[in-house]
Amino acid sequence: MTVYDPTNIFARMLRGEIPSHQVYDDDTALVVLDLFPQSRGHTLVIPRAPSRNLLDADPVTLSVMLPLVQRVAKAVLAATGADGLRVAQFNEASAGQSVFHLHFHVIPVYLGTDLAQHGGGKADEAELASLARDIAARL
Amino acid sequence: MTVYDPTNIFARMLRGEIPSHQVYDDDTALVVLDLFPQSRGHTLVIPRAPSRNLLDADPVTLSVMLPLVQRVAKAVLAATGADGLRVAQFNEASAGQSVFHLHFHVIPVYLGTDLAQHGGGKADEAELASLARDIAARL
Repeated sequence: MTVYDPTNIFARMLRGEIPSHQVYDDDTALVVLDLFPQSRGHTLVIPRAPSRNLLDADPVTLSVMLPLVQRVAKAVLAATGADGLRVAQFNEASAGQSVFHLHFHVIPVYLGTDLAQHGGGKADEAELASLARDIAARL
Repeated sequence: MTVYDPTNIFARMLRGEIPSHQVYDDDTALVVLDLFPQSRGHTLVIPRAPSRNLLDADPVTLSVMLPLVQRVAKAVLAATGADGLRVAQFNEASAGQSVFHLHFHVIPVYLGTDLAQHGGGKADEAELASLARDIAARL
């Protein structure tokens, strides 16, 4: 395991250096839509505190994340009408981690529709912007 | 979504009605090895408080779960020598949930080895017992 690199894309989003389709923002976390979603409404919960992944995170940070993931999950379900929902968190490249700042995937599942590959096609920006507003309104 | 059914297999494990390969136990959660692991060391963190999944869980329960998942993840990595680790939590059957009591999967990933299907082959009981001791010793 290597150290935390503050130039990762989520750290830059947290600093406002690059745009994102924001759903929610507070002192502890930023919640955005994934640009390369595995399904419609694929959302990321990104704690503000810097850590590479779960393994080096501060337990105090972790203690507030899951209640927030729950709130986001309910809002995503309400906004999308999905049939179910997966929460996933990857540690190290071997496990599928591609951005090395701790984050939680909230992935709606729709009956009869397989999930897309992680990091597959980029979503339509206008559709993401509309969906981000719909989810935010339910948070 | 339907209501919580207290006869589910994890509720029965929590009540000690059926055996499990236990890694850890306290007032908040039971940690056991998955009998049908996706990889060697696939571990489940099961909160004691009854809820069907993340959606109906008490946020107070959730606040202590992720710090525990972190401790378990570190112990699993230390005991198995895995290269990475996935954390996953499924809500409703459409998303892959098969036992309707909230639980978190901690799944080690080994470079060059694909994960097995969820709920595939049953692991060797003696190997699980040995591995449970190894992980418990690192918690």
